[in-house]
Amino acid sequence: MHATAIENLIEKFEGLPGIGRKSAERIAFHILEHMTKDDAQAMAHCITEAKEKIQLCPTCQNLTDTAPCKICSSPKRDKSVICVVESPEDVSAIEATNEYGGLYHVLHGALSPMDGITPDDIKINELLLRLANGEVKEVIMATNPTVNGTATAVYISKLLSPFEVKVTRIAHGIPIGSDLEYADKITLIKALEGRQSM
Amino acid sequence: MHATAIENLIEKFEGLPGIGRKSAERIAFHILEHMTKDDAQAMAHCITEAKEKIQLCPTCQNLTDTAPCKICSSPKRDKSVICVVESPEDVSAIEATNEYGGLYHVLHGALSPMDGITPDDIKINELLLRLANGEVKEVIMATNPTVNGTATAVYISKLLSPFEVKVTRIAHGIPIGSDLEYADKITLIKALEGRQSM
Repeated sequence: MHATAIENLIEKFEGLPGIGRKSAERIAFHILEHMTKDDAQAMAHCITEAKEKIQLCPTCQNLTDTAPCKICSSPKRDKSVICVVESPEDVSAIEATNEYGGLYHVLHGALSPMDGITPDDIKINELLLRLANGEVKEVIMATNPTVNGTATAVYISKLLSPFEVKVTRIAHGIPIGSDLEYADKITLIKALEGRQSM
Repeated sequence: MHATAIENLIEKFEGLPGIGRKSAERIAFHILEHMTKDDAQAMAHCITEAKEKIQLCPTCQNLTDTAPCKICSSPKRDKSVICVVESPEDVSAIEATNEYGGLYHVLHGALSPMDGITPDDIKINELLLRLANGEVKEVIMATNPTVNGTATAVYISKLLSPFEVKVTRIAHGIPIGSDLEYADKITLIKALEGRQSM
């Protein structure tokens, strides 16, 4: 019984990550009831503009509006370390820590034979090309600790063995602030295996 | 460290109902990574179009793209009953039950002296105008069971006393499927007060 234009609007929001039918309705009504025409226009413009301006960095494959991206072109970043991640969101998460000063490489996915995602479907070749000049000394595999993420890390680390680079994997264990009691078995095993002298 | 166009996009989504910084980031990256240019364009278009086409129904004040709205102009609806609600979302919720066959009146808010919302700020006069021709026999006050919603219902019911209409209030009580144990005191009191013979 919604007017067509409202129904269309709801449908566009429904299915965005974390947004179901009910949330999509609330957002649509918010736009219609509480946003000015100018604000709605600005929102529409930002979607179009972002989609037009944002491209993949030719070096690290992260989303960027400059080529190369801000991180790759920054003189302050340590160009001898590359942190390999699955997605641009992972770059954001690591950048938010303010503790990492090296470069990134975004794979845009992880290997997944079940879903037909092969090495050619993610940005592995682009990573190999970056190692050619010998400037990189360490590659940190920061893919997710899932079956696919781990398999991808192992696969890439094997590909990198001919190069003179140290390949490392981010640590897995009990998250800070959480309770040992509630950790799953695999995490607990990883935490024990990865124990360090103190 | 986000590219400007990405940051702008995130900011447009942040602050929509139920969407914080983290969700806004996920949505922005989803649009950039997983939506086609056409889909993004369509989304932007829907926002602009909805904002342009949607207006308030001159009769019931609900959001509509036709004047009067589909409900007000439907020959199937019982024109002797008006259900008064605070927002268009409330109309959707009641319509979703498929159990109400009357008309609506959307106030677009509730009286709130604290926030400076007076009778002139919500669509009360528009409701009174609808009662002039004597066709309406019952007005159901379905404003929210909050302090402001209840005050609004009481205020309007007093205004309606000169008209020959029955004014009713939706029932308050324990929601179906929930547990008495977890009901708050006021709800429990309302449930006891509103008890019916069985």
